[in-house]
Amino acid sequence: MMKRLWATAFLALCVVASNAQAADDPLPSWSDGASKAALLQFIQATTDSSSAKFVAPEERVATFDQDGTLWVEHPLYTQVVYCIERVPAVVANKKPDLKSVEPFKTVLSGNREAIAKLSLPDLEKILAATLTGMTVDEFQADAKQWLATAKHPRWQRPYTELVYQPMLEVLRLFRANGYKTYIVTGGGQDFVRVYSEQVYGIPPEEVVGTAGGTSYGLDKAGRPELTKDPKLLLNDNFGGKPEGIHLVIGRRPHAAFGNSTGDQQMLEYATIDNGPVLGMLVLHDDATREYAYGPAERLPETKVGTFTQALYNEAKQRGWFVISMKSDWKRLFAFDQ
Amino acid sequence: MMKRLWATAFLALCVVASNAQAADDPLPSWSDGASKAALLQFIQATTDSSSAKFVAPEERVATFDQDGTLWVEHPLYTQVVYCIERVPAVVANKKPDLKSVEPFKTVLSGNREAIAKLSLPDLEKILAATLTGMTVDEFQADAKQWLATAKHPRWQRPYTELVYQPMLEVLRLFRANGYKTYIVTGGGQDFVRVYSEQVYGIPPEEVVGTAGGTSYGLDKAGRPELTKDPKLLLNDNFGGKPEGIHLVIGRRPHAAFGNSTGDQQMLEYATIDNGPVLGMLVLHDDATREYAYGPAERLPETKVGTFTQALYNEAKQRGWFVISMKSDWKRLFAFDQ
Repeated sequence: MMKRLWATAFLALCVVASNAQAADDPLPSWSDGASKAALLQFIQATTDSSSAKFVAPEERVATFDQDGTLWVEHPLYTQVVYCIERVPAVVANKKPDLKSVEPFKTVLSGNREAIAKLSLPDLEKILAATLTGMTVDEFQADAKQWLATAKHPRWQRPYTELVYQPMLEVLRLFRANGYKTYIVTGGGQDFVRVYSEQVYGIPPEEVVGTAGGTSYGLDKAGRPELTKDPKLLLNDNFGGKPEGIHLVIGRRPHAAFGNSTGDQQMLEYATIDNGPVLGMLVLHDDATREYAYGPAERLPETKVGTFTQALYNEAKQRGWFVISMKSDWKRLFAFDQ
Repeated sequence: MMKRLWATAFLALCVVASNAQAADDPLPSWSDGASKAALLQFIQATTDSSSAKFVAPEERVATFDQDGTLWVEHPLYTQVVYCIERVPAVVANKKPDLKSVEPFKTVLSGNREAIAKLSLPDLEKILAATLTGMTVDEFQADAKQWLATAKHPRWQRPYTELVYQPMLEVLRLFRANGYKTYIVTGGGQDFVRVYSEQVYGIPPEEVVGTAGGTSYGLDKAGRPELTKDPKLLLNDNFGGKPEGIHLVIGRRPHAAFGNSTGDQQMLEYATIDNGPVLGMLVLHDDATREYAYGPAERLPETKVGTFTQALYNEAKQRGWFVISMKSDWKRLFAFDQ
């Protein structure tokens, strides 16, 4: 009897210890491995004032690409889906002349095959028509409403639920250690700001994105309004990412996370000749749980995506970590069991 | 004897009480009056969770113009002095072709009268030549060096000492109450960021200013560099101030401080139909301690400056406070006794 009691007590202790370990683990959705170890080591080294790699609190800046790094980017960028789905309302309420003009005619036809084949210049026309010409307030209200109802075709869940749980844990880990976590996205700054606080815990002032100009004025009732202009101020992709970081933040980040050639320059800017640094690229190599697209060396069975072989080679050369979605992430989404 | 002891004790108590009062006053350089009372009331009301005017911590944003609001702007904007004084080095080291071209020829002549008469287009040429074409790092190092040695012609002190002590107290008061204090300046963002942390306690990411584009690349040694382009992204004056606030911050401020028509739209944006708000304009009406320029109604003896009569009228209409440098500020600079 006594023996059994002891055994039960021991078992209970083990459970407590295991729970304690889980509770202590700031990255529970990450498998043990090089990526998780690098994250924990970077945080430890840069926040320990006795470490040679200590980073002063005000210099703790980490930047994160969004599409494909923090949330799903396939089969289309969420914002592109938004713009396409906004076409009917914009044409009906604001720009009736576009009704019989391509590519709007195709979008209005509802022919999914034809829509899927739209060219990049066509998409740009759709973006310009649906992202400019309204006030910032109108745009925000509209995007918010769309995000509340639109669903991803594969998961049939709101896009804002398709954020990677492991990356939410990284954002929290960095912030808990005094880092400011900026989104630096090729997506529209105004679009991402609509949900960044709620979804990522990132306030609007810590979102850098592709940004157009606005024009200030007072409306008929004498209230201030900013109207979104079709003038591009910042294309926050490729070299535009370090340029946007300089424009809005004015400091070089010590850690940067991306997943594509559009993030290459941001990772270079963060990690070359800049003291203690961490560069990480998410590799989408999990066709079962999400999608697989990437360098031929790692994913010979898939077509090369925006994570090119050249980017993979640069990552190896510069010591950037490649996060394998398949093997580094135990759990993908918060709704996964 | 006993009586005298009591008297001494009483006197000591009075001194302690008086010191305690001074220590409790977050605005010791301000005279009692409407402006000081408005500042204290605004902070009290917006940070008291039981107040109808409570502002949630994340929404606590206050914006401050710099030239003429936080530091002296006469006889020339400090950055314009910097640009003029940089001409010889820029011509010698970077752009020798400009040697015989106006307005550079005039600047190189050293003829102060002729320099003082340069037109606005001439000054713009000088700004473009001295603020672009170099890397951000080169520019910062150069501006830092200049600021360490250059002196204001009237006070013979570094420009960075010519900041208004009462406004430093306002910045600290706001920050101590959870407000982010942004500089929103018509001056160059890159220029102000060089000293904003040291002089105002404001980090680079909380400086919004007139900004040009940059171009990202790797230098010959493979290190990242951003080169300053002659492409204007944001003219952070007039309507450009709310536009810049939206671009960088993405929230409307609840308090805004300025001193000229260039700040009018920022104060409108902050104070019209935006809940609990505070708008304040510094009136330079102190020719003895600083300068006097402003609306005819207040300063009939001076020529109307950038604080026009129309702006003064709008301030009265909208309930913005006009800070009288002469009567509201007991002490102007930290070096004043």
